[in-house]
Amino acid sequence: MGRIPSYLRYLKDIYQYTENISATALAKELGLGEVQVRKDLGAVSGAGKPKIGYNVGQLIVSLETFLASGNNSRVVIAGAGKLGRALLDYGGFGDYGLEIAAAFDTAVKNEEKSKNGKPVLPMEKFRSFCEENNIKIGIITVPAKSAQEVCDIFVESGIKGIWCFAPCVLSVPPEVTVQYENMALSLAYLKKRV
Amino acid sequence: MGRIPSYLRYLKDIYQYTENISATALAKELGLGEVQVRKDLGAVSGAGKPKIGYNVGQLIVSLETFLASGNNSRVVIAGAGKLGRALLDYGGFGDYGLEIAAAFDTAVKNEEKSKNGKPVLPMEKFRSFCEENNIKIGIITVPAKSAQEVCDIFVESGIKGIWCFAPCVLSVPPEVTVQYENMALSLAYLKKRV
Repeated sequence: MGRIPSYLRYLKDIYQYTENISATALAKELGLGEVQVRKDLGAVSGAGKPKIGYNVGQLIVSLETFLASGNNSRVVIAGAGKLGRALLDYGGFGDYGLEIAAAFDTAVKNEEKSKNGKPVLPMEKFRSFCEENNIKIGIITVPAKSAQEVCDIFVESGIKGIWCFAPCVLSVPPEVTVQYENMALSLAYLKKRV
Repeated sequence: MGRIPSYLRYLKDIYQYTENISATALAKELGLGEVQVRKDLGAVSGAGKPKIGYNVGQLIVSLETFLASGNNSRVVIAGAGKLGRALLDYGGFGDYGLEIAAAFDTAVKNEEKSKNGKPVLPMEKFRSFCEENNIKIGIITVPAKSAQEVCDIFVESGIKGIWCFAPCVLSVPPEVTVQYENMALSLAYLKKRV
């Protein structure tokens, strides 16, 4: 699983110039073991063609389809600022079996509706909403100084996967997965590559 | 450069449970060559302590500081929807020597100001703005169907690095770097890990 984002990033980089790639070449480019790469690609896309390998475009589609597969999940957001509301109303999650169910914010006192009609609720409703709707995934878009407090509420409410946009490192129990998204670092990384 | 995001992602994952890590262990975990990892970490953080390695927290700070270093850059955005405006007004870029200078949108006919006072301009002003302000980095937050058209305008306007939030693959000349950010794929990836 951990290698899929690297595969996708590299394949999209070369897509424009490269029609086919072998598992051997991909392993070498990413500094991974060839046996591992062959196994990963075999699992998501079947065997490559002898002497040709995989069509880059088809492999991108296979990897994305693999990520999109599985049961549908409903997801909540804590922090209804601009970023939280952008994610709440973003239409692209449905293709991946994901639905943003609601956003929560301490500054919201009575239920509001977002531009696309999604509920924006007071933070006090977070736990009961997650329990009633069996929510296991949550997004943190509050400032860094409030992120740990929100994270603790997430954990108490049964959230098992956290996508964190606050620039910080969260403390969670071992069974909870945190995935960090630092927008400023991503842009800084692009700057370094230009 | 390409390995820095992987180092950071992994180090943040283990930060809570692990005080120190050796270059050898890090290389093994990420499937990278030990010599390479030793060289990378040496360049950003000096040598590790014998038999102990690197303090995980300090290494995170060193890697982020490295990404933040270098000249300041001004950046523009095409697409002033919710995501574009969230990025335009996001306060966290300054720490990394980045300033979002303006957003552009075909739906904007006269100059507007964002909530935080940043200019939101008609798309027709894009090229002259970039030329006058020597802009080399641009962000695409338009829908996928308009992304290539916007990308072509970026390239004609002298942009050398593109951060693309549209779910698509762009065609660019070899000297232009594209970094893709697919929010739905990132969340789908978290879902698979929970």
